[in-house]
Amino acid sequence: MNIGIIGAGQLGRMMALSGYPLGLRFTLLDPNLDSSGAQVSDCIQGEYDDATALQMLAAKTDVITFDVENVPVEAVMPIAQLKPFYPPVNALAASQDRLVEKTLFRKLGIATPEFRAVDSLLDLQQAVKDIGVPGILKTRRLGYDGKGQYRLKNQRDIEAAWNALSSLGIALIYEAFVPFTREVSIIGARNIKGEIAIYPLTANVHQHGILHYSVAPYRHMSLQKLAETYLKRVMKHFNYVGVLTIEFFVLNGKLLANEMAPRVHNSGHWTIEGAETSQFENHIRAICGLPLGSTAARGYAGMLNFIGILPECELILKSPGVRFHHYGKEARPARKLGHATIVASSASKRDHALKKLLKYSLS
Amino acid sequence: MNIGIIGAGQLGRMMALSGYPLGLRFTLLDPNLDSSGAQVSDCIQGEYDDATALQMLAAKTDVITFDVENVPVEAVMPIAQLKPFYPPVNALAASQDRLVEKTLFRKLGIATPEFRAVDSLLDLQQAVKDIGVPGILKTRRLGYDGKGQYRLKNQRDIEAAWNALSSLGIALIYEAFVPFTREVSIIGARNIKGEIAIYPLTANVHQHGILHYSVAPYRHMSLQKLAETYLKRVMKHFNYVGVLTIEFFVLNGKLLANEMAPRVHNSGHWTIEGAETSQFENHIRAICGLPLGSTAARGYAGMLNFIGILPECELILKSPGVRFHHYGKEARPARKLGHATIVASSASKRDHALKKLLKYSLS
Repeated sequence: MNIGIIGAGQLGRMMALSGYPLGLRFTLLDPNLDSSGAQVSDCIQGEYDDATALQMLAAKTDVITFDVENVPVEAVMPIAQLKPFYPPVNALAASQDRLVEKTLFRKLGIATPEFRAVDSLLDLQQAVKDIGVPGILKTRRLGYDGKGQYRLKNQRDIEAAWNALSSLGIALIYEAFVPFTREVSIIGARNIKGEIAIYPLTANVHQHGILHYSVAPYRHMSLQKLAETYLKRVMKHFNYVGVLTIEFFVLNGKLLANEMAPRVHNSGHWTIEGAETSQFENHIRAICGLPLGSTAARGYAGMLNFIGILPECELILKSPGVRFHHYGKEARPARKLGHATIVASSASKRDHALKKLLKYSLS
Repeated sequence: MNIGIIGAGQLGRMMALSGYPLGLRFTLLDPNLDSSGAQVSDCIQGEYDDATALQMLAAKTDVITFDVENVPVEAVMPIAQLKPFYPPVNALAASQDRLVEKTLFRKLGIATPEFRAVDSLLDLQQAVKDIGVPGILKTRRLGYDGKGQYRLKNQRDIEAAWNALSSLGIALIYEAFVPFTREVSIIGARNIKGEIAIYPLTANVHQHGILHYSVAPYRHMSLQKLAETYLKRVMKHFNYVGVLTIEFFVLNGKLLANEMAPRVHNSGHWTIEGAETSQFENHIRAICGLPLGSTAARGYAGMLNFIGILPECELILKSPGVRFHHYGKEARPARKLGHATIVASSASKRDHALKKLLKYSLS
């Protein structure tokens, strides 16, 4: 069985590496033949919206998935009719627009921060009036890792925010700033038969809008249950196949959905060593119609991103119990270049080891 | 860093898969571009003794290793002078000849079964006279997985044995049959700096001359210590770099060395999930001059080979705690097609799970 992946970043790379032991083959599609994923797999060179390249991918493969969220929906529609395409295009489309996504969350009874569509300065003024400050003006589309955002601390910021983002010429959304006590994510897989397997909650710490480190399991029985309920609602809505992630703010013991990602997620990288089956393998199993693997945690995991700069490989490899993941990418500021994971027998041992690791992460 | 591997079988495949997370690249050399290793890596098409292909491999890579023991020593000599070549060619040469190998063991004070070189029927008659029966007449070279062997139960088998093997036209060796209570293997790595890391002993069960299953750790403090001493002697002798394996018979509480393999070994496949660092990763670390990873066991591991026939992937994936390794090879009788590993929290749980797994192995 040959699996096509649109995008050959580190997620595509880790998907391929997780699928090889199952005897599966991979063909990736990426503009860059030396990209992270292309280093470990066959790769067709092409832009994500290159119809000819996408047709080639469909012709070579039995099932198609993606490792980037910004795959143009219109471009993949034709191949999604040729070959099984998972996660479903509808879920991909919804995840690409913060307004559509949050409106859906609300429709499904999933709490979110307050938000308003913003298409004009007047809209923004009204939104700030309704929701108040602080708040964040965001592009509805193509934002990730904190890009395309402007934070409003008070009413006087309205014009500056409008000027900063309206020039991009794309629709905007204004969201209430949530003074959260914690950010968590729920990650689960649903396979073709409708079987579902959900990982324990992960607690995430961001820096400059990019995930810095995660710890898991974040044990909180009622939040776990609530997050699972929310995740299943979204899965059911889309007749979802593959791994799905929802990020939440925790506020006053409640979950507010921030966004969803119709794919494996950075906050789930700990599952490679820290869970019985990794998110990557479960995504692949799900889209291939295979039984899902156990999502049980093996211990107490911590995952640290290396952003913009990688530590000396030797330093990490010498650290007891630390597993290194180098993505084979060239260093660039704010670029995710690799990560390290530790799995310990207790939360305190994990935290101790993570603290030591943090010094190697200079971001 | 690009690592060249001569041979692209399942060992090369698993070496590449273990090295990718360290950001390393691989180029394999194999006659078959659809071989197990070539499915997950760049591969140059060529026979193992194709001088042009070997030169291409050397030109593309920074360090060279091999996944097959039968690499012709004369063919690799030239590239071993161009690029770092590990394990050392001397160790490779010794491992290819049972007489040289066993003579070396004796010289290093490592006990072996009784043996005699056999180059004529007369030699064989004398050998049987000296050592007695039962015994095994073997080809000195190119034997693996029980091929090229003839077992002598009594003196009357001498002529039949001679007729069966002398026709191959290669030198022979007669070895005493060892009524062993157990077969074990010791696997360790030595890196460029001379640092050594050794795994716990593995106990092995063969069927028709091919490894059927292994369990580890085989806990026996005095045998562990003895095996480590023997392994270090061989490593020191060759100024060894890479993973080295020695297989022993256990007889009356002593170790008799049967053979060595200058490479990762089938009996070490359990280390992928069952040890802190796999034998594959430690081999790669060793030859790249990186620090070796911990060889500590994570629990009680069992590894089962699938020979000639693979069970349905679904069946294995449904078995709790079982990890599947499919080599992507076409089924052929007596061919190693994959393996499964379980890691349990106790030896009895491991044995129970292994027993269940054994029914999927129809060899």
